[in-house]
Amino acid sequence: MSAIITLTSDFGGRDAFTASVKGVILKVNPQTLIVDISNEIAPQDVWEAAFTLKSAYSYFPKGTVHLSVVDPGVGSSRRPIIVVTESYYFVGPDNGLFTLIYQEAERLRVHHITAAYYFLPNPGPTFHGRDIFGPVAAWLAKGIPSGNFGEEITDYMKLSVPAPKVATNNINGHVVHIDRFGNMITNISYKHIQMLSAEGSDLGFLSVSIMGRDIKGLRKFYAEAAPGELAALINSSGLVEIFVFKQSARTILTATRGEVVRISLNK
Amino acid sequence: MSAIITLTSDFGGRDAFTASVKGVILKVNPQTLIVDISNEIAPQDVWEAAFTLKSAYSYFPKGTVHLSVVDPGVGSSRRPIIVVTESYYFVGPDNGLFTLIYQEAERLRVHHITAAYYFLPNPGPTFHGRDIFGPVAAWLAKGIPSGNFGEEITDYMKLSVPAPKVATNNINGHVVHIDRFGNMITNISYKHIQMLSAEGSDLGFLSVSIMGRDIKGLRKFYAEAAPGELAALINSSGLVEIFVFKQSARTILTATRGEVVRISLNK
Amino acid sequence: MSAIITLTSDFGGRDAFTASVKGVILKVNPQTLIVDISNEIAPQDVWEAAFTLKSAYSYFPKGTVHLSVVDPGVGSSRRPIIVVTESYYFVGPDNGLFTLIYQEAERLRVHHITAAYYFLPNPGPTFHGRDIFGPVAAWLAKGIPSGNFGEEITDYMKLSVPAPKVATNNINGHVVHIDRFGNMITNISYKHIQMLSAEGSDLGFLSVSIMGRDIKGLRKFYAEAAPGELAALINSSGLVEIFVFKQSARTILTATRGEVVRISLNK
Repeated sequence: MSAIITLTSDFGGRDAFTASVKGVILKVNPQTLIVDISNEIAPQDVWEAAFTLKSAYSYFPKGTVHLSVVDPGVGSSRRPIIVVTESYYFVGPDNGLFTLIYQEAERLRVHHITAAYYFLPNPGPTFHGRDIFGPVAAWLAKGIPSGNFGEEITDYMKLSVPAPKVATNNINGHVVHIDRFGNMITNISYKHIQMLSAEGSDLGFLSVSIMGRDIKGLRKFYAEAAPGELAALINSSGLVEIFVFKQSARTILTATRGEVVRISLNK
Repeated sequence: MSAIITLTSDFGGRDAFTASVKGVILKVNPQTLIVDISNEIAPQDVWEAAFTLKSAYSYFPKGTVHLSVVDPGVGSSRRPIIVVTESYYFVGPDNGLFTLIYQEAERLRVHHITAAYYFLPNPGPTFHGRDIFGPVAAWLAKGIPSGNFGEEITDYMKLSVPAPKVATNNINGHVVHIDRFGNMITNISYKHIQMLSAEGSDLGFLSVSIMGRDIKGLRKFYAEAAPGELAALINSSGLVEIFVFKQSARTILTATRGEVVRISLNK
Repeated sequence: MSAIITLTSDFGGRDAFTASVKGVILKVNPQTLIVDISNEIAPQDVWEAAFTLKSAYSYFPKGTVHLSVVDPGVGSSRRPIIVVTESYYFVGPDNGLFTLIYQEAERLRVHHITAAYYFLPNPGPTFHGRDIFGPVAAWLAKGIPSGNFGEEITDYMKLSVPAPKVATNNINGHVVHIDRFGNMITNISYKHIQMLSAEGSDLGFLSVSIMGRDIKGLRKFYAEAAPGELAALINSSGLVEIFVFKQSARTILTATRGEVVRISLNK
């Protein structure tokens, strides 16, 4: 059975960056199955990479190595790391990219990668995806134990991820991602809504406010809303999402990531 | 030999959608070879998906499973289906996406997918690409007979696809796709041109009109036209295509899909 | 072990072009591992393809077949060729796309592809990526000797690639590529800098001029520069690169490919 390595990066599909990393992996192990999660993360946007990786990683087979490189600090003192959870491996820079993995993992071990034996010869200071992370991911997927790459550390970096504030009758959160369709995904989950009073669990009793607009109730699926109507639902990751059916909520609201979203119980 | 699954969707390459579907497939069968046809279909553009799938599907090995998900009606009563032709399988929503496959198939069987046994547990109402279509395609590619997924149906949905109107001396059609190069592909094929009089079969005797511009004759290849000159040829799918060599006909004409195109015999 | 074929083209990810080529390859050999180098080369931009291919090809395993198709002259008299070097095969049009490969190769043999036996039946004049180059690459990767595809030629085409001019105290070059991050890559390499006087080898003694702006010294990595500051370093391909940390030098300078860059020894 082939080892699987996924790739999440801001390398893009137009330049040679992504392909160089893949070539290096295949030189170590031509049997590797490499799957792109996304190489179109906005340049240097560590949060977008963290969110995208979190949305996809758990759908892959147990044992998958998730290589994730959005790395503005490449060449500086920020450390290269391997994260080991109960089901997956993660390889990338210690800059907070794995924050959401740390939150979800039941078991967790983080290694500082120092074993230059597994790097490309003479790694440079500007492209560790190719010179360090790629080959390390390939060797790891080939079966080298994580402990061989370096010592365990506990002071790995986490991004500050503000949780929604849940009160008796309302929840205050914000937009954490806007997808290709212009749908705006919030950090408010179905679990937060269940923390509201009993009526709250009937989704029709809720209202969602964003940028001065009020949305009454939650839909079950996109086509339940009329075209052009601002609406909301619980999306496929269990998060409240604001959308316009067959149009872009982002464009209609001229919204950006970070917009405040408030969910209230209707009375 | 690996099973092959192709993917045609509007999921894009930036978000986690496409990768989640691939992960789910690999969980069912890590030996699957997954090939993107296109995940950059315009959001909710079922026609573009139908046209793109039709342009590529027949170049793949016999037995390939073509997973195709442009699905604005996800979660509504629109049905998930499997289409079986003499050489391929198609999996996706019953919204007309397979219209051009129905037109070309010599043998055809369509199944309404109902066997939840093959779905992800607890499928949600907003992402059937991941929860239903992906796993069904993976099981199908792994050898589960199409009949196991649900009953055969005959009332599957077809898009209305207007054919060109062929008269004695002319053909009226329209632009059905504009590609990355700005080339404008019409629904007028070489077979339609052969239906004109004998002179018509000499391509130099034809003229092509679009948006008030007249093109004399058809070229054999792009470099036969001068840079900047509006020209036409029979493209690699056998369709009349309007182009500007090394430039974008779309930009020069400010054209959109649907423009009327008329082919006439010169006298 | 699977054969590896890489793909560099201007076919894009949205239309069916790239997938059709892949399907054709898999029909010849379903065990082929196909890896995209880039299908997002600017339309008809042979130089960009040459540069991107050159940046990535050597990271792939020995024996890899690099299929490269940016081919505005498709259908004309320009020849289809196979290039054989000490470690790799290259398949594509004879239009200069392999110029940088010719410069780097220690051993080199070029064949004019004429053996129609390996083409798709009835190849058309507008899509040789699918009808000729794809199947030839697949047969080559499957082990057919390069000599079977056609006679050796020596008059293959090369792009004119101006080298930087190195004087005693300065080097004059230009920007040859601008990447996704807006970083501007020049044709001035670390080897050129070493040709300057001894002081030059201390990178802090250099200054880099572009578009009336002067940059003092070279950084080792991106994060060494302050955000917003125009800076330069030796990049992961050994070339002088002008950048703005966490921003786009292209946007800030409104620069395009071809800008003149001058490196001087500070006194």
